[in-house]
Amino acid sequence: MAERIFITDYISYVNERLESHFENDKIEQKLKDSMWYSVSAGGKRVRPVLNMLSNRLLKGDLQETLDLACAVEMIHTYSLIHDDLPALDNDKLRRGKPTNHIENGEAFAILAGDGLLNMAFEVMIKNALNYPDNAIKHLKAMDYLAKAAGVTGMISGQTADILFEDVEEDKIDIEAVDKIHMNKTAKLIMASLMTGALITDATQEQLDAVEVFGMKIGLAFQVIDDVLDVTGTEKSMGKAVGKDDDAKKVTFPHVYGVKNSIKIAEDLIEEAKEALSIFGTDAKDLILLAEYFIKRTN
Amino acid sequence: MAERIFITDYISYVNERLESHFENDKIEQKLKDSMWYSVSAGGKRVRPVLNMLSNRLLKGDLQETLDLACAVEMIHTYSLIHDDLPALDNDKLRRGKPTNHIENGEAFAILAGDGLLNMAFEVMIKNALNYPDNAIKHLKAMDYLAKAAGVTGMISGQTADILFEDVEEDKIDIEAVDKIHMNKTAKLIMASLMTGALITDATQEQLDAVEVFGMKIGLAFQVIDDVLDVTGTEKSMGKAVGKDDDAKKVTFPHVYGVKNSIKIAEDLIEEAKEALSIFGTDAKDLILLAEYFIKRTN
Repeated sequence: MAERIFITDYISYVNERLESHFENDKIEQKLKDSMWYSVSAGGKRVRPVLNMLSNRLLKGDLQETLDLACAVEMIHTYSLIHDDLPALDNDKLRRGKPTNHIENGEAFAILAGDGLLNMAFEVMIKNALNYPDNAIKHLKAMDYLAKAAGVTGMISGQTADILFEDVEEDKIDIEAVDKIHMNKTAKLIMASLMTGALITDATQEQLDAVEVFGMKIGLAFQVIDDVLDVTGTEKSMGKAVGKDDDAKKVTFPHVYGVKNSIKIAEDLIEEAKEALSIFGTDAKDLILLAEYFIKRTN
Repeated sequence: MAERIFITDYISYVNERLESHFENDKIEQKLKDSMWYSVSAGGKRVRPVLNMLSNRLLKGDLQETLDLACAVEMIHTYSLIHDDLPALDNDKLRRGKPTNHIENGEAFAILAGDGLLNMAFEVMIKNALNYPDNAIKHLKAMDYLAKAAGVTGMISGQTADILFEDVEEDKIDIEAVDKIHMNKTAKLIMASLMTGALITDATQEQLDAVEVFGMKIGLAFQVIDDVLDVTGTEKSMGKAVGKDDDAKKVTFPHVYGVKNSIKIAEDLIEEAKEALSIFGTDAKDLILLAEYFIKRTN
């Protein structure tokens, strides 16, 4: 039986690896500081942990997936830095600390975001070269993440999110909300899992199961995020709340109310767990994490 | 003897391929428009042409390198969009047209830049999967470009460029200027050539020659750019001039004067041509392009 690894261990692994990517004298110090400010700002590392748990579920090698885990966290972090900018969401607080541009100025926030996005691909490419016999699978994993994070995924979601602020309330289209959630949040969560899975010897059935799990928890995650924007406090969330309503953002609580939205999220988590039933008890850590999603308060 | 292809043909090839990457209904229209605004804004396609000429010099397959040519142009374009932002260089005119953020607003300029950077990697990764037998060489090409464009290359160059505005004139360090030019401009030009070369059967000697050529023309390109900022007009350049001086940027004309700077650039171009001497007349198109660099007025 394989050694038991706890989620806190996985968080340590990815934190150590992330740190190692910043031990590089060739990165201009001011740029490095700005990037590291956000990378080390107390993120919960949900996406890297999903990556490592999915890789482990499919009998992968932790060392082989660690840079993919770093890459999804780098992409997540860059998207937060750019989203928080004055021209986008204009947020001043993130994870209980000043947002990157408040701390480092807009120029270095923009460049830090660019740097993290580029670095995500850089570490994945370098890692793939360390596993030449598995290069095609690494390319497939990178392909999945590039699509999820890119202009047919997360960046289109962010664009639609901004455009929606100008749509009148009676013209709200729930299908459009679904699409925004899918693009803005779910695809990167799916990619976190799938990058860990695609480099293993998983069967297509197993890959499909992991992908459905990712989609369901990804959508649930966004619904809960929107609920917390209504019910949470700035203190508990570490960021400004009530912003979605101020900005007339189209969210699940906005359309269905808080209570129904929580029910929707709970149903999604049940469907997510169901998707992993083919793995039996091997999937217990991923299922624990899915349940944590629904219980989280920030 | 291989069929003669003119530089204008290469420009058509890359323009067609770039266009094909935007024929995608899954990209949010507003995002697509903002990205395309800058991609189609009349760039000279110097970097993609260098990529294709270097690939051809080393007996590569044009179809195999076309997406790498697109990728270097996407990265170049994203860097211009973000550089022009109010928080960075605050430029209003680029290639004779309003800069992206003036035309599309800051939010969609930031997202367009993010989209182009992500798309650059996306098209290279997808392309690599089309050549599975050559996957390792494609990974090496991507690795070269990722480093050149990233936090140990272009993005550090942009960071240093901004930081230098605050350095007092008598503390100008010519080595630092060299390093900024190398990072900000030369590395992406080197990567344009090297991505085309690394996917071929080139020998190490040939790769080294192409790399030296790239470094020399890359540095010359930046020196000439700085000279034109002093001697050019807004009309001929299609962008504001005299900005380097206003911003107290550290440039070659600033340190050596215009005349000496032109001499430095000419010497660099001679050294660049010399580096390609091992290829004899096969290198004539690259040498023509290098000579064009020194003669250009915008």
